[in-house]
Amino acid sequence: METIVGKQSIQFQKAPHIVSAASIVGKKEGEGPLGKLFDRVEEDPMLGQDTWEEAESALQKQAAMLAVEKAGPGCSPVRYLFAGDLLGQLIATSFGLMDLQIPLFGLYGACSTIGEALMLAAMTVQGGYSESVMALTSSHFGSAEKQFRFPLEYGGQRPLAATWTVTGSGAFVLAPTGGKARISGATPGKVVDYGVKDSLNMGACMAPAACDTICSHLEDFGRKPSDYDAVITGDLGSVGQAILIDLARERGYDLSGRHLDCGMLIYDAQAQDTHAGGSGCGCSAVTLAAHILPKIEAGQWKRVLFVPTGALLSTVSFNEGQSVPGIAHALVIEHC
Amino acid sequence: METIVGKQSIQFQKAPHIVSAASIVGKKEGEGPLGKLFDRVEEDPMLGQDTWEEAESALQKQAAMLAVEKAGPGCSPVRYLFAGDLLGQLIATSFGLMDLQIPLFGLYGACSTIGEALMLAAMTVQGGYSESVMALTSSHFGSAEKQFRFPLEYGGQRPLAATWTVTGSGAFVLAPTGGKARISGATPGKVVDYGVKDSLNMGACMAPAACDTICSHLEDFGRKPSDYDAVITGDLGSVGQAILIDLARERGYDLSGRHLDCGMLIYDAQAQDTHAGGSGCGCSAVTLAAHILPKIEAGQWKRVLFVPTGALLSTVSFNEGQSVPGIAHALVIEHC
Repeated sequence: METIVGKQSIQFQKAPHIVSAASIVGKKEGEGPLGKLFDRVEEDPMLGQDTWEEAESALQKQAAMLAVEKAGPGCSPVRYLFAGDLLGQLIATSFGLMDLQIPLFGLYGACSTIGEALMLAAMTVQGGYSESVMALTSSHFGSAEKQFRFPLEYGGQRPLAATWTVTGSGAFVLAPTGGKARISGATPGKVVDYGVKDSLNMGACMAPAACDTICSHLEDFGRKPSDYDAVITGDLGSVGQAILIDLARERGYDLSGRHLDCGMLIYDAQAQDTHAGGSGCGCSAVTLAAHILPKIEAGQWKRVLFVPTGALLSTVSFNEGQSVPGIAHALVIEHC
Repeated sequence: METIVGKQSIQFQKAPHIVSAASIVGKKEGEGPLGKLFDRVEEDPMLGQDTWEEAESALQKQAAMLAVEKAGPGCSPVRYLFAGDLLGQLIATSFGLMDLQIPLFGLYGACSTIGEALMLAAMTVQGGYSESVMALTSSHFGSAEKQFRFPLEYGGQRPLAATWTVTGSGAFVLAPTGGKARISGATPGKVVDYGVKDSLNMGACMAPAACDTICSHLEDFGRKPSDYDAVITGDLGSVGQAILIDLARERGYDLSGRHLDCGMLIYDAQAQDTHAGGSGCGCSAVTLAAHILPKIEAGQWKRVLFVPTGALLSTVSFNEGQSVPGIAHALVIEHC
């Protein structure tokens, strides 16, 4: 069994285990279909802080500390952090994790960051560079709107293709043993650009990247969608899902019966007025922690392809008329 | 010999080699003391593009392609990219490396990013996840001033503690064998905050982090500064250097005879009016590629501690009155 698989994938011979997971979310997420599954629902969107950014930092810190607590005293201390967020220069992460005094690898892959973080965390554990590491990401509706869009007070109309940034942070402790789920493979993604320029239709921007990574993964491993109990993207939303299924069909893969999307799972789009679904670095992280992982741990799902997706834009590139390229990172998560 | 060393360090048993390096810089850097050492000096700050950001993307793409060319046909194709820049949401990287169609791990550690990139690249190669990988970063004076400070047209006065963002990109190909330099150890850094709030005195913001990483490194490996031919930080500049030497002395280490700083090497501060020195993700990357690595390859330096430094701020955190924490990542680079 080779570590290097196909053009761009990795097979973990000693698959690192996900020892614990923690999810902290905001009020709206707590009112959604997964509400009861999250570890903690914060009623105050400011988390007692002065700014949205500090609130997001507080979410990360809480999630990190809870994941350590849930890993228990039997787990060796977390040696390295792999973390990121959506904000320019990752301030939610830098300020949120500072007090932990653990070396930090700052990551940015837009909303796909938890995929990148889990992948590097798993590579670090199998590589013997650390007994125990943590992967975590966050997003916050207030800080993301401020960073990318309009002042909340402006009350801008949102098109139906728009998604709603999840307020939440998900954290995971990985180690060589422990827990009932493991990361057995990974396919890091390429930047894929179909030239879409609508930053309020991120599903369309990201679907080609999701398709590229999923199809590359299936080709590298010689698998088909039915080899997975579910193929779960990060935050394509309903608009992106339709595009992904079409694009994958063109490459010979039928995802229609297997595909789920964290952005579609986390909100009741009709009742909660979230349009195409949820998004943000926190979306796939908290959905993995609260919904996907427990199903895998219980053996209800034996093997899942988890594919967080990211839209690679900034207000600078967008205002300069650039397109919005996408990226997606795929992880094989198995019951054990 | 253990992989895990001390509290936060890594010893590479099969030290990955730096097979090739490329450096592309702007006109000002070409006129500095290291001018003749860079692979290419671009006279046009726009590199024929329409925006500073596109110009920076062009720098990255050129550096990446040149590093591959210099690695030669004997080196296996680059399987993964580890890259980042200073801009919000890493647009210089996403747009610059898109055409290469190689899976990308987007990284952010402010000006310390090349340290983070080389570290993860080395961990990936020794871990057997890839034969050949690339680490690269960039910065651009125009895009950085636009991102962090004032419009260039405003002509704001710069305090003497300020540094000058380097226009340049440095790229490195790593593989299990080849070349005459290797990465034998690494100490990833923690976020360190001394509460400094002056974003125009980044040397003071970063010096405590540099001190923390260097001292932790020396403690983890049981070494002293004289075990290295040079201890080279990224972009502390003259102000940060004085602080680092003072802080390290308090922890029992005398760095005064061994310390160099890429930001002080790249410009003639007096003649080029750059005040405290150079800075930016590109600063330590191009100085490593053009100046440090050739000395190691020639055996003039046997062992160097390379410590890129980063100031973790954004305009958002700064405008909200937050301090500017620092981070520094250390790499042991040896002649072989």
